[in-house]
Amino acid sequence: MVSRQAGRLVKASPPIAAAHFRAEADPYHPERNPGGYVNLGTAENRLVADLLAPRLAEAPPPDAATTRYAPLHGSARLREAIAGFLSATSRATPVDPGHLVVVAGATTALDVVATALCDPGDGIVVPAPYYGAFDVDLAGRSGARLLPAPLSPADGFALAPDAVRHAVDRARRDGVPVRALALSSPSNPLGQVYPAEVLRRLLAVAAELDLDVISDELYAHSVFGPRRFVSAADAATGSPLPPERVHVVWGFAKDFALPGFKAGVLHTTAPDVLAAARELAYFAPLSTQTQELLAWLLTDDPGWVARYLAAGRRRLGASYTAATGALEHHGVPHLPAEAGFSVWLDLRAALPAGGSGSDTGHAAEQALWRELFENRRVSMLPGGMFAAPEPGWFRMCHTTEPTTVRVAVERLGGLLAARTRRRPPTRRTR
Amino acid sequence: MVSRQAGRLVKASPPIAAAHFRAEADPYHPERNPGGYVNLGTAENRLVADLLAPRLAEAPPPDAATTRYAPLHGSARLREAIAGFLSATSRATPVDPGHLVVVAGATTALDVVATALCDPGDGIVVPAPYYGAFDVDLAGRSGARLLPAPLSPADGFALAPDAVRHAVDRARRDGVPVRALALSSPSNPLGQVYPAEVLRRLLAVAAELDLDVISDELYAHSVFGPRRFVSAADAATGSPLPPERVHVVWGFAKDFALPGFKAGVLHTTAPDVLAAARELAYFAPLSTQTQELLAWLLTDDPGWVARYLAAGRRRLGASYTAATGALEHHGVPHLPAEAGFSVWLDLRAALPAGGSGSDTGHAAEQALWRELFENRRVSMLPGGMFAAPEPGWFRMCHTTEPTTVRVAVERLGGLLAARTRRRPPTRRTR
Repeated sequence: MVSRQAGRLVKASPPIAAAHFRAEADPYHPERNPGGYVNLGTAENRLVADLLAPRLAEAPPPDAATTRYAPLHGSARLREAIAGFLSATSRATPVDPGHLVVVAGATTALDVVATALCDPGDGIVVPAPYYGAFDVDLAGRSGARLLPAPLSPADGFALAPDAVRHAVDRARRDGVPVRALALSSPSNPLGQVYPAEVLRRLLAVAAELDLDVISDELYAHSVFGPRRFVSAADAATGSPLPPERVHVVWGFAKDFALPGFKAGVLHTTAPDVLAAARELAYFAPLSTQTQELLAWLLTDDPGWVARYLAAGRRRLGASYTAATGALEHHGVPHLPAEAGFSVWLDLRAALPAGGSGSDTGHAAEQALWRELFENRRVSMLPGGMFAAPEPGWFRMCHTTEPTTVRVAVERLGGLLAARTRRRPPTRRTR
Repeated sequence: MVSRQAGRLVKASPPIAAAHFRAEADPYHPERNPGGYVNLGTAENRLVADLLAPRLAEAPPPDAATTRYAPLHGSARLREAIAGFLSATSRATPVDPGHLVVVAGATTALDVVATALCDPGDGIVVPAPYYGAFDVDLAGRSGARLLPAPLSPADGFALAPDAVRHAVDRARRDGVPVRALALSSPSNPLGQVYPAEVLRRLLAVAAELDLDVISDELYAHSVFGPRRFVSAADAATGSPLPPERVHVVWGFAKDFALPGFKAGVLHTTAPDVLAAARELAYFAPLSTQTQELLAWLLTDDPGWVARYLAAGRRRLGASYTAATGALEHHGVPHLPAEAGFSVWLDLRAALPAGGSGSDTGHAAEQALWRELFENRRVSMLPGGMFAAPEPGWFRMCHTTEPTTVRVAVERLGGLLAARTRRRPPTRRTR
C-alpha cells in the first residue's frame, strides 16, 4: 500500500501526459494515416529542429571530467553561461550566476521554489486561466494549494491586480495562509506579453498583500509580437516589492526547443530561498552531460544563438499568422497572442446545450473535448485544465507542420459549423 | 522566510558535499601541491576514466527526436536496455522494463520509493553502519524517519536480522509506525557481499514484521571478491516475503563510474508503488540526451560492456589490494571488503582520550576527523556520518591514483603512531 502523500499524487495526475502519448502513438499523416490524431495539445516547438539538430551534432563529446560529481545546483560553467545569456537577452539588471539553481527541468524549478516558500496548506494565488501543470508543479509535492484569481473574458483575460486581491482576501478570510503569487510571463495559455507598468501594478499588490512572486518566464525569448518582454525581476525595480521577493523560473524547453533535456533554472536573490533551493536541487540534479552541452551551446558561438533565437521568433510569428488565418477562414473565434506556442480558442458556441452553469458547463466542456479527441481526432486541452473562469475555451498549439495545423482547424471548423448550425452566429472575439 | 519543510532540509544538510568540494578545490599533487588535500571521502571510481572517455566519444550526437518530450519515467529504449542489462548480469529472474522507473539519479530513486511508501513520521529501519546519505535520500523530502539497527563491531558488523527485529520492536513500542527496511547491498560503507541465505533470513524478518524492503544495489557490478552478488529481488524467491515487497534501486554512478550523469532507476513489481513512482518521476526526470547515450552504451556493443565491467572489477581488486597493503604496512587496522570503493578503518585507538561514552565518543570522533581534515589534509568520512554504532570508524575510499592513496595512508599512519605512542598497541581487526 502506498503512502497517503503518494496516493494524492496518483489521484491528481492530469490527463495531459496520457492524451499526449496516445495522440503521439497514432499521428495523422496525409497519406499514411489520414484518420490519425492531430496533436495540438502539447506546447512543443517543432519549427526549428532543422536548425537545432546540426548544431547539436557539432557539440564536443563528454570528457572524463564531465562524468564526475559536480555541484548539484548546476556547474559553475553552466550557471555562468545562463547568467550571461539572460543578462544579454532579456534582463535589464545583470543576473549573478551565484543566484541561479539549475535543476532537472522547469517543472522541478517550480516545485523547488514552491517547496522553499510553502508548507502544506499554504496558498499560492494564480491569475486564471493559468498554465495547467502549475497544479502539479507548484502544489503536487510542496503540499501548497493553488488559489485561482479568475480574470475576465470580457476584456480578453487581461491581467487584473484586483482579481488577485479579491482571491487573496477571500482565502485569508477562510483561514488559508497565502504565501505567494505565481504567474507565467509571457502568459501560457494566453500568449500575452505583459508591459512593465502592468507587472509593476501586480507587484505592488503582492507587496501590499505580503506575497512572494513566482514568475515562470519559460517563453521569455518566444515573443513574436511587437511588445518587448520585461522580466518580473526587472519590474520589481521601482515597485514597492523588494527584488528578493521575486523568483524567476526559466528553462531550455520552450525558447531553445529542448523539452526532452529537462533543464530548468531558478533565479532568486533571496539568500534563504537560495539556500533552500540548493538543498532541494539535491533531489533533482541535471545530468552533467546535458549541463556541458548547454553551456557549450550558449557560449561557443553567440552569433549562432542570436541567429537561432531570431529565426525561432520569425518562424513562430509565421506559424501564428498561418494558424490564425486558418481559424478565421473556418470561423473559429480566438484571442490575439504575441508570444508562446498557442492560440486561446473561444469554442463557447460549440458547447452542448445547457452548458453555461459552472458544473454543467464543466461537463459540457469535457463532452466537447471528448468529441474533439475521440471523434475528430484533434488533441487540444480544454480551458478546465487551465482553471479557465468559464467553460468553452481551448488552447491550440500551432508550432508544428502547417499542414497538420490546417487539418486540425478544418476538423474544428467542421465541428463548430455542425454545432452552431441551428444557433445564431457568435461574434468573433478578434 | 522559507517554509518549515525547506528549513528542515537546510538544517539537516550533511557536510559531505561541502568537505568534498573544499578538498577538490585544493587537491594534493606530488610536485605542484604536496600540502594539498587528499580526498578519500568521495566514493567515486577514478580507475576507469581511460576506458570510458574514448567510448563516450564514439556515441552518436543527439538527433531531433531526442530533444522532444518523452515519457517522464524513462524512455522505452532506455528501460529496455537497463532491463536487458540487469537480467544478463546480476539477476536470476528477468527484469521487465515495465517495472522500471528511470529518474535523475539513485538519490532520487531512493527519495521516490521512500515517498511512495512512507508518510511523514513513518519509520524506515536501516542496519547500521549505513550509507550516510540515506538520511537525506530516504527521509529528507519524504518526511520518513530512519531507525538505525546497530550491528556489532565484535563480528565485523555482520548483517543480523535480530538487530532489525529489536529496532523495529522498540520503535513500535514507542508508537512509530515502521513501514520499511532499507539496506545497501553490496554494503556501503562495509563492502560486504551478502550471500543469498543471509538476505533470505533478513527478508523473513521483514515479512514477519510486515515491512517492505528497499535494496540499494548501486555496487552490484563492483564486486571484486570471490562471493557472487545476489539481488534482494532474487532472494525474495523462496523467502516468505512476496517479491512485490522488494524494491531495488540501481544506477550508473558506481558500476559505470558515471556519477555526474545522475541516472538512477527503481525496479518494483508492486503495481501501486510503480504508479506512485511514475508520478514522482515527473519531478525529477533524466535528460533525454543522457537517456539516449546510456541506452546506446548498454546495447551498442555488449562485448565492450562486458570487457569494461571485467576491467573495472580487476582494477577495483588491485586498488583494494594496494590500499590494504599500505594500511597494513602503516599499522592501520581495517575490516576486509569484497565490493565497493572503500575500506572501513578502525581508528578507535587514535581517538582522543576519554572517547568511549556515546556523547564524548562522538565529540572525540569529530575531533579526530577535524585533525585529519584540517591538519593532515586527508578527507575521509567518520563513522558518525554512517550511524556507526560506536565512534572511531572511518570510511576510506581507495578508487583513485595509487600514489594519492599511499600518501593518505602515510599521513594516517603518522597520526595513528603519534596518537598511540603512549598506549599499548591495538590488535589489527584483520
